[in-house]
Formats: sequence, C-alpha cells, structure tokens
Amino acid sequence: MKNTFGNNVCLTIFGESHGPAVGAVLDGLPAGLPVEEPFLALCMDKRRARGDGLSTARTEADVVHILSGVYHGHTTGTPITLEIQNQNTRSGDYEKTAQLLRPGHADYTAYAKYHGWQDARGGGHFSGRITAGLTAAGAICLSALQAKGISIATHLYRCAGIADTPFAGAAPQQLAQQMQKVQRCVGFPLIDTSVEASMQSEIRKAGAEGDSTGGILETAILGLPAGVGEPFFDSVESALAHMALSIPAVKGIEFGSGFAFADLLGSQANDPLRWENDHAVFYTNHNGGINGGISNGMPILFRTAIKPTPSIFKPQQTISWPDGGNAELQLQGRHDPCIAPRAAIVQTCAAAVAVCDLICAWHGSQWLCTDAPIL
Amino acid sequence: MKNTFGNNVCLTIFGESHGPAVGAVLDGLPAGLPVEEPFLALCMDKRRARGDGLSTARTEADVVHILSGVYHGHTTGTPITLEIQNQNTRSGDYEKTAQLLRPGHADYTAYAKYHGWQDARGGGHFSGRITAGLTAAGAICLSALQAKGISIATHLYRCAGIADTPFAGAAPQQLAQQMQKVQRCVGFPLIDTSVEASMQSEIRKAGAEGDSTGGILETAILGLPAGVGEPFFDSVESALAHMALSIPAVKGIEFGSGFAFADLLGSQANDPLRWENDHAVFYTNHNGGINGGISNGMPILFRTAIKPTPSIFKPQQTISWPDGGNAELQLQGRHDPCIAPRAAIVQTCAAAVAVCDLICAWHGSQWLCTDAPIL
Amino acid sequence: MKNTFGNNVCLTIFGESHGPAVGAVLDGLPAGLPVEEPFLALCMDKRRARGDGLSTARTEADVVHILSGVYHGHTTGTPITLEIQNQNTRSGDYEKTAQLLRPGHADYTAYAKYHGWQDARGGGHFSGRITAGLTAAGAICLSALQAKGISIATHLYRCAGIADTPFAGAAPQQLAQQMQKVQRCVGFPLIDTSVEASMQSEIRKAGAEGDSTGGILETAILGLPAGVGEPFFDSVESALAHMALSIPAVKGIEFGSGFAFADLLGSQANDPLRWENDHAVFYTNHNGGINGGISNGMPILFRTAIKPTPSIFKPQQTISWPDGGNAELQLQGRHDPCIAPRAAIVQTCAAAVAVCDLICAWHGSQWLCTDAPIL
Amino acid sequence: MKNTFGNNVCLTIFGESHGPAVGAVLDGLPAGLPVEEPFLALCMDKRRARGDGLSTARTEADVVHILSGVYHGHTTGTPITLEIQNQNTRSGDYEKTAQLLRPGHADYTAYAKYHGWQDARGGGHFSGRITAGLTAAGAICLSALQAKGISIATHLYRCAGIADTPFAGAAPQQLAQQMQKVQRCVGFPLIDTSVEASMQSEIRKAGAEGDSTGGILETAILGLPAGVGEPFFDSVESALAHMALSIPAVKGIEFGSGFAFADLLGSQANDPLRWENDHAVFYTNHNGGINGGISNGMPILFRTAIKPTPSIFKPQQTISWPDGGNAELQLQGRHDPCIAPRAAIVQTCAAAVAVCDLICAWHGSQWLCTDAPIL
Repeated sequence: MKNTFGNNVCLTIFGESHGPAVGAVLDGLPAGLPVEEPFLALCMDKRRARGDGLSTARTEADVVHILSGVYHGHTTGTPITLEIQNQNTRSGDYEKTAQLLRPGHADYTAYAKYHGWQDARGGGHFSGRITAGLTAAGAICLSALQAKGISIATHLYRCAGIADTPFAGAAPQQLAQQMQKVQRCVGFPLIDTSVEASMQSEIRKAGAEGDSTGGILETAILGLPAGVGEPFFDSVESALAHMALSIPAVKGIEFGSGFAFADLLGSQANDPLRWENDHAVFYTNHNGGINGGISNGMPILFRTAIKPTPSIFKPQQTISWPDGGNAELQLQGRHDPCIAPRAAIVQTCAAAVAVCDLICAWHGSQWLCTDAPIL
Repeated sequence: MKNTFGNNVCLTIFGESHGPAVGAVLDGLPAGLPVEEPFLALCMDKRRARGDGLSTARTEADVVHILSGVYHGHTTGTPITLEIQNQNTRSGDYEKTAQLLRPGHADYTAYAKYHGWQDARGGGHFSGRITAGLTAAGAICLSALQAKGISIATHLYRCAGIADTPFAGAAPQQLAQQMQKVQRCVGFPLIDTSVEASMQSEIRKAGAEGDSTGGILETAILGLPAGVGEPFFDSVESALAHMALSIPAVKGIEFGSGFAFADLLGSQANDPLRWENDHAVFYTNHNGGINGGISNGMPILFRTAIKPTPSIFKPQQTISWPDGGNAELQLQGRHDPCIAPRAAIVQTCAAAVAVCDLICAWHGSQWLCTDAPIL
Repeated sequence: MKNTFGNNVCLTIFGESHGPAVGAVLDGLPAGLPVEEPFLALCMDKRRARGDGLSTARTEADVVHILSGVYHGHTTGTPITLEIQNQNTRSGDYEKTAQLLRPGHADYTAYAKYHGWQDARGGGHFSGRITAGLTAAGAICLSALQAKGISIATHLYRCAGIADTPFAGAAPQQLAQQMQKVQRCVGFPLIDTSVEASMQSEIRKAGAEGDSTGGILETAILGLPAGVGEPFFDSVESALAHMALSIPAVKGIEFGSGFAFADLLGSQANDPLRWENDHAVFYTNHNGGINGGISNGMPILFRTAIKPTPSIFKPQQTISWPDGGNAELQLQGRHDPCIAPRAAIVQTCAAAVAVCDLICAWHGSQWLCTDAPIL
Repeated sequence: MKNTFGNNVCLTIFGESHGPAVGAVLDGLPAGLPVEEPFLALCMDKRRARGDGLSTARTEADVVHILSGVYHGHTTGTPITLEIQNQNTRSGDYEKTAQLLRPGHADYTAYAKYHGWQDARGGGHFSGRITAGLTAAGAICLSALQAKGISIATHLYRCAGIADTPFAGAAPQQLAQQMQKVQRCVGFPLIDTSVEASMQSEIRKAGAEGDSTGGILETAILGLPAGVGEPFFDSVESALAHMALSIPAVKGIEFGSGFAFADLLGSQANDPLRWENDHAVFYTNHNGGINGGISNGMPILFRTAIKPTPSIFKPQQTISWPDGGNAELQLQGRHDPCIAPRAAIVQTCAAAVAVCDLICAWHGSQWLCTDAPIL
C-alpha cells in the first residue's frame, strides 16, 4: 500500500519539502470524534523548529487546514484531509550542490527508484517535513484515544550522549505521572528535566562543529485494553514497528526489555502474574505489555533508535550524479543538529494512528466514540 | 490483514500446535519458479528440533505436503498451499496445569482476545510450531531470490551470553563468504564456529537448571538491487520489521548501526560515497543498506532480539484462570532451552517473503523468473 | 491481494481441479462461533454434482477437513483452514486435446499469464471445482450470520429460458417465506417449484445436443442492519460485486432495479419513506437495500448473469497452442450442461463472506458472536 | 480500505459537496509519467455541469491544484495530491428541508452510519461532486495508458429511453474509430451523434416536469495486453466492478454479453479462436475480453446501469428525521435531470485507475513508463 498505513484506520501522507503543501488523508475514524484545532496546533507546535541552534532555522507556521471530514468540530466519518502549506522554503540553498549526493540521505536511492524525476529540493518527499502531515493526522487519533483513557507519551530516553530517567516498567501509576510530566514539556520532552541543559549544550556543541547527534526515544502507551493485536502478522509489535520505522531517521525499535533480553534467563525475563483485588496483575513488564503479539493490559513500552541528522556542515566525500566522479561536498542550507527532540511528538502521533487501527480492527471503529450521537 | 502478510506476494499461515496440521498459503509468485523439495526439506531440517538438550524433545518429521500451486516441480502462478502434519503431540503434558497461566506466554492475552475458545494445547496458534509453515513458504521465496543473485543468511550474533563474529558491515565479498559459511552450518548457524561449543554448553547449563536463554540474530541480505522499498509506510525497514516482529520471541529489530546510532555523530554515521570502476560505492554501511526507506544496493543488515523461551521448569508465580486466585506453576512438557538457533532459519525464510513482496511491488512478479517460459 | 478477499474477514482460496486438494483459509472471524459440520456438509451437498444429466458425472464426496481454527465445534479466532480432497479425477480425458485451446475457457489467458507453467488438467485453478473451498468457508459465515438474524438465499431467477418467480422487492415478510422455501430445496433452488421440471427438461435437452445453457441467479440478504458499507470504494455494491464476479461464469451483477433503472423516471425509481410503528419504512425497494453504498435496512437484492458452461460437445473452431495453427476441437470429459443450479449455493456462501467482512469493518468482529464466552 | 482503492496504484478520494474542497491522492504510479494540465482540464470539462437544462446550474471552475507528486510536468513517483475547490455552493437551498430525508438519496443511510455527525449540506460526501477528484486522478492514469497504446472510452449506450449504436463487439479497428468519435464529443458522448437531439429533448422534458431519467453507459478498453488480472478475487471483472459500483448512481455492471448470456447456448456464447498472421484471433467477443478473470487481448467491454437522479422536484412522501413522522418533501436546489452524460467521463477515468492497478500488479509500475529516464 506504499504510502498508506492501516486496514481500518487508514493514513495516507503526501507532499514534498519545497512543494505547495504537505498533508495527510485519515480515513476510517468513526463520526462524532471531537477535533479540537488548539490541540492540533499544540502538537504541531511541539514538532515545530525554533531556529534556536537546537533545530533548523526553517520555521513554518504549520497551520493545519482541514479540507474535508470535519464539520462543526467533529469528525463526520468520511476521509479527513489535512493540508499544511510550505511557506519558508529556500530552494536556492540546494542548487549549488544539487549534483552531489548527500551521504546518509536518500539522494542516491531516490535516483535509483525515481530515475531523476524526483523533486529533490530540500529532500523532496524524503524530508522530515512530510512528518508534519503525519503529526497532524496522529493528533486527531491521539485525542480520540485520550478520551477513551488511553494516553501516549514519548520522551528523550537518550540524546547526544545524555540519558533521561526511563519510563517505569511496571507500575502504571508512576508511569502515568511520568507521562503527564513529559506531555507538559514546552521544551525537550523529558522526565528528568534537570538533564535538559546538558543535552541542549551537547547538541549545540555538535551543531557548532557542523556536526549532528542521534538519540533514543522511549514511548509509553497507557490504558490500552488487553486483547488488541494479532498472533502473527498484525501483532502489536509488527504494527507499531511498521509505523515507527516509516519515520525518517528511525533505524531500530525494541519492546520491553528488547535487546537486553539476549542476556536474560527465562526466569528473569518472564513477568509473574498475581491476583490482586479480583484482577490479574503482572509484577514486572519485561514484555512491554505484549505477549504473543497481543496487548496484555500492561503499559506498552518501546524505544526507537534515531540516527544523527545526515545533514552536516563538515566536508564529506561523495560522488557527482548522474555524471559520476568523486567530489567533496560542503553542504549549505538549514538543518537540525539533532532531530530526536522534534521526532518525539511525531512518534507519539504516529503510534496513535497505529493504535487506533489495531483497536478498530478488533472492536470496530464505534469503540472510539465518546460523545453521544446527535441522532 | 491479520494473518496475511504482503500486498504482492501474500503469505497466510495457519495451524495450532496440537491440531491436525500447520501450514501456509503463498500467493502472488509468478509461474515457472523451481520448487525443489530437497531444498524445502533442508530448510525444514535446519528448523527442526533434535531432542538433544539444545532443543525440544518434540521432534517432528516436518514433511511438507504441497496441496496446490506447484506442478512438475515449478510454481504454477496460483496459490501455493503447504501442509505440515502434526504428529508428535503430547497434549496430556498440558492438562495438569491447564488452568494456570504460563508467565511470558500468550495464555493471558489469548483469553483476553479469544475468551476461552482458543485451542490452548501446546500454545495453540501461539506456538513456535506455526513457524514451520512460515519456513516452508519462505524457503520457496529464498530459492527464487537465490536464483536472481540475492542471498539471505542469519547467524547467532549472540546467544546465551556468547558472541559470534558480526557480519562485515560494508565489504560485500567478505560478507558473501561469511554468509556461505553460515548457510553450510549443520549445527548452530555461526560465522566463527569455534564458539559453538561454549554456546551449546551455556544453553545446556541453563536447560539443566530448568531455565532458558535468549540471543540476538543477525541477518544479511546480499544482492538486493538499489531502488526497492518506499519512502514511507512500505519502507524496507518497515516491511522487514513487520515480518520479523511477527515471529514469536522476537522483541526488537535494528538496521545497520541501529541503537548504536544514538551515540554517533553525523560525521561518523554517514556512509561516504566514492566512484569506483564506473559505479557508486559506499565506504561504510552504517545505514544497513537502506536510505530513506529504499535499498541502496549495499547489503541489508539487521539484528533481532530473541527473548528467552518463556517455558521454564522452575516454579513460577502465576494465577489460575478464569477462576482467579494465586498459584505456583511447575511446568511439564517439552521445550527449547534456547529458541534462537532454530529461529535463525525462520528469520531467513521470513525475510525472503518480505523481500519478494518488496521486489514484486516494484518490478512486477515476472522479475523473479529465471527459467525460460514453456510457451 | 490476488486470491485473498476482504480486509477484516479475509478469505484465501486455493487448489487445482486435478491436484491433491482444493480448500480455503478463512481468517478474521471471532472466537466462539459454532461450526457445525452437518451444515457445512449440507452446503457442500447443494453444490455437489449428481451425474444425473443435469450436472457433471464427476461426483466428489466433498468431505471438508478442518485443519485449523476450529476446536470443540467452535471457531478459535485463528485462521480456519478447510481442505477438500480431489478424488474423482480423470485427467486422461484432457490429454488427447491438451494442445487445443477450449473456446470460452481460460486456456488462452492461462497461457498469457502463466506461460505454460499452469496445471491445465481439468482447467486447473480456473475450474469451478475451486468454488468448493469458497462454499465451505462461506458456509461458516452463513451460519454465523443466520445466528444474528441475517439470512441469505439464492434462487434460479431464470435458467435455460425458464423464469422463476422473482424475490419480492419490498415486503420483508413475504421475502422471508420465499427464502425459506428456496433454502429447503433439495433439487433446484426455486421459489415456484412448479417450473423445475421444464427447467430440467430444457437443460437436459441442451446437454443431449452437446450444448449448454446459462441463467440468472437472484440473491436476497434479509436482516442486514442499516449502516453497513462505505460511501465509495467499499460500498456494499462494490464489495458484493467484487466477490460475485470472482465466481467463474458470473459475467454481470445488478442491484435492485439494476439495468431496468435506465428506463425509469426518478419519480418511479425513488423509494418513498413512511413512518410506521415508530420506524422508518421504505414502501418500495428499487435500490435493492442500498443507498449511497450503505445498507438501508431493507433486503439487499441482486442478480447475477451466469454464462453457459463453455464446455460443450459440439465441434468448435480453435487453435493449437503454443505451436499455432487452426484446428477443430471435439471435447471429451465430464461437464455440467448448466452450472447455474450448482452456482446458487456458491453465490450464497460467497455473499456471506462479503457481508461478514462488511459488518466486521463497521461493528468489529465481536458483533458476530452469540454464544456466551467460556471465560 | 474504505475510501482507498487498489493495491499497487492506490487512489484515495475525499471531500464534501459544500466543504472547502474535494480531491484525491493517487499513489503508486512510477516517476516520469507526463501530467499535462490541459488534458486534466479537458477531462474535468467533460464532467462539468453547464447549467443548460441538461445538467445542474451549479457550475464550478474545477481547476485542479496539484499539491504534491508532480514536478516539471511529470510524476515524481510519490503520492499525487489533487485539490479542487468548491466555490459555487448554496447551502441555503438545503436548510428549509434539512430534516426531511430525500428518497433515493443516502440521507437515511448517512444517519444510520454517521449518527447525525455527517456534513449533510448538498449531500456531503455522498454528492456526485466527489467524483471530481476521481476524474482528475483518473485522467492522469488515462493519459499514461494512452501513451502505452491502451485507450478507454465511454458512451451513452442508452439514455432517457434513446439508444446509441453499441460498441462493436469484436472488430478492434471499427471499435477504435467508434472510440475516437466518442472521445472527440464536446456534448454528449455518442457514437451516433444523430440521436443527441432526441436524447437531450427527452432529458429536458423530464427536467421540465420536475423529474429525472437514467441510462446505460458502455465502456471499451482497447489495447490491454492479454494476461492481466487474477483467476479469483482480483479478476478483471471484480476490479472494474468494484470501481464502477463505487460511482454514485451506478447500480449494475455487465461484461460482454452480460445478462444476455442467460438465454444463449454455449455454442452461441463461446468465442471461436482462429490463427491469423501468426496470431490468435477471437472471432467474436461475447466474453468482453476476459476469460477466467484474465484479459484475453480482445477489447474489454462493459456496461453499467445508471439510476435516475434521485433529486426530483415533484412532491415526495418521506419522513422527518430524527424526530420521526410523515411529511411531504418539495425539493429546492440545483440538480441534474440526468447524470449519465456527465458520468461517462467519470467512468472512463475510474476504469483507468483500475486498469493501471491491474497492470502494475502484474508487470510492475515501470511498465507504464514511456519517457526516457532523466538519469
């Protein structure tokens, strides 16, 4: 399905970095879900660059125009089309070095796939800019889930070599507090905000040297009922990984103990069950809230690896294309020295789309409704 | 699509651990691909348990019956149905503890999703046994890819605390040799076979203590042409992750430098391009052969985290279901103290299905054909 | 998705006419639906040839083997695999004329698509035999719908030039009686059983002359709630047409007044609404229970065109393939002089799959459940 | 997939009649296909209302804004987003009778599905206006097919009781001339333009009486290679029917002889094959260019039933909703007395999307390319 995700809640995203607009079509949500434009604007704002040395100087207003599917502040049940215009484009930055393939970017693969027909300005369809549509669409899902008691938050688990406190593995109450703290963050999404200054300092330092840094994002989904997902190809892990690894710069994902499972014994890795207050309770959450591909009612926990922004301002060895021949590239333009802080809300919103799709596959889309029908 | 994977090459798998049979339907391959039963048998054999203290004592003949889609040793272009009968079942092992939820397993989530209607014998549809069908179907894809110069191999990157030599990151020739070595392995799939004894010793030790261990599998795909995959939702990473995370026990995946990207600078992480013999060459392969979701012609490299088998023989705290109440579980039955060695061929075959689907989406299914048409 | 139908309830069918078996995998139904083998056998029996001059002399036992997904007489929620062995095959009938393309059949197109690799014996995957798997899978859906008060029946609206009484257009009660009558039919599915003798006589006459005849099937779906289907690409008409036109020999479909709409005025074609006993009631049902692609609560009514069986025993002009050259074909083998009577139950069962898929897309699969959960 | 069609070439359409815009996202086409805005404008013009008593007085400029996926006049290979603004809306027309359900429209079913949250102005998402996006997207596919020698045309086979000459069943050359004649039509798309005056007179007469009329559209696809389509669920018939029956007002479809097959004998219905100039030739085309679901190289021929526009200006019996109670509806607003003439280009463009999807499934999307790659 190429640029469409999901079977029940279907998201199609579109746009080029320097084209007229980027956006998304979100289909399959039920009618009657509130769409609050201030909440959309808040999510867009969390993703927005600030031109403060921590993110690119290309700052966009990112006003979300709703072209269809929303009426009187609620979904109508038909496809929701969101359009975000590109305004602050400086295509000239790219012209001088247009023939030199940027290492770490999709320039070479774009040629391999599109044979030169691609709109390469600003990375075209490969730009992180395309995540604006993903974020806006995901924000609608996020707010629908919130109304059903399902919250999602993503923090900077690690960035530029500095670690935040991790999400609590098992205790839903402590986790809820951590998530609320992250959701309130105006600047970097952190549980331990005391590390913000040193993180920013490291990012600025890399940027000042013409370099960039990576990070790890950790996402928690709290309140997802047990029983969502499929044993095989639509496992919760498969669906969330499919979505997360679509986000540019994400190069890995792990659930629960993830790669640390390799060195655990089964007796350490299994999550014991206990009966408390007439409910099943897991004492630990090494499985990240998923067993056999299906949610077990515990918080879903996953981390993604974010590679350093490939756009750096140090001289790089590359080739000229399509004519061939070696060259040295000195990039111009405006870039983020670290994309992880802005990617956090993208990951949250993207996960919200995947979770809505999984839930609707199981319970039907009406499950998401909270407001009483007009009729 | 629940238990069906793929848009162009579509795989549906079915079966329960103690039901009459497990199997798969593989649809979308072109007509005329050779299906060599000895190669299927070889792949099944690599996945087979040996009852030697390293894997479960449930040994199955795993003969693959082809019910449709193959005629005179070649695909006919119609759905290929593969049936593998279950013969060595001992459902009695599970009866004594049938009401006690096994920690780390899908017992609790199966109840949440299927409300008690599931066939719980031997884990039912959640059993690793279901990967027999996946392996058989993937073997057909694997052999088709091999004929087109695309090879796939998976080794035990790490297992029970012991590390194998990693796949070479950039040099295709050295990698090819490593892969051939792995493919020839009769026992554990390793590049450095000198670590086999200590790995086996550690696994046996865990098994003897009634415990189990995990590991990390590393897969290389060599020969995939540049230009395969999509910028967003059907990125190569998304497709491979979707598939890999459907395999029971896989809890994470990383491509190229993966989680190590977090602490790299862009100047370290970017893969420089050079012009050699009229071709573009990447000096390094931190991106694991994928940029912008699209293959760049370098080897695809990824690793998956395998959790320790949840079936252990130490007493575990759990609950009785559905009546509730705490209990101590002492498992009976036959289990693998470490599933990683047998999972390697499953991951190879699963990746082969995903790669075929990606290629056919782009080049059309005829691209896979090598034999001249009869007509 | 090639040979897989549906997004929520997914059906994959497989098999060749003279291969080991035909069958189906049905995925996405909830756990806990009763699967009564006698009902499956009844549906298979309605589809079965009798070798009585009205249908082919190839009579098959058509025992449905359930390989997975059913346990203790109920669905488990995992893929249901149904296998029906081919036993009464006489491939020799085809050998003499194997190189001569049979007009009206898929011989030529099979060559164009499969380049000679197809299993051409008995039509291979193009045989009506493949509908055995479709019927068996659909029977499970049909019985699930019946338990929810949704019934489906198909009768011989017209066959061999003889017309049955049509289904009542608007009055659900009268229609229900007609449907029950059809469902009880042991021989031809007819409302006015008095026409059976003349229909059979016409079919026998065509058969005796080495010829074949076509017909029109009419299907009614009673009890489908209003609100199912989508405004555009998954309209009820689109989904049912997609399914029905997959059945071999079906060459057209019309809903409600169908092609007769062409000569109606809007004032004749619109279905007036009235308020009766606190419910909306449509006085007529020209729209066949669907407005804007969505069910309106009235009976769904559609008719399909069935072409005459292409297998006839008169000499036919054709070509030899792949060598070329003109030839005269004199067919051997066993065939149905009219496939419409056997196709009726196939169409009913196929519609049941499509309806289940549409309902589950909207209400979630749990909607289909009637039995209380075990848990 | 709700409002998305296709597996390889994927079309999502969006919009409400009186919302800001309607449009479409078309994904999966290869890079490098010419997108000529005059051709898009021509197709939009053929669909456009003229306010001349034959079509609605709501005339829209229907300028197609390309938001993404096209660069320097060619596709880039990324999603193509087309936006067509709504300008000439008069929502006030609907307010007086907003509570009265319009017979024949989707008002009642919209309530059943969307529970009152729908944007009902002008029919909202159910309006024929939504086909503007379908037409624009299809026009891009149509022009790509034309460049590969595949042409599609639709004429008014029957309208308001007046018949046009039918498309020639078998002779490609004569058909090509008929199609070119239809494609050149400025007014009604007809082969025998001498019937235009009487058709228009009948439509005007119905309109003058406050009534509306239906018709039958016939579509020919010439030049489609043999071998496209699937034996079962993605048969050419299934795909084209799925698409065509998504178009509002289409209530039936038949291929080749269609419903006339019912009264044909096999000896009349089979298409004899002859060997001429080293090629297989079918003497007749009763099967409409499709055998076993797969194109046979002959022209694809199908007809669709178009119901009379439900918007009529005679008093109609209906109910008030959601409060209940009987009422008489006297519609206001601007409507088409017959939608068939405008629907012809919609059906042509819609078929173009389906054909592109079928071809790309089989040959890969690169098959559509004609221009040499830039690279």
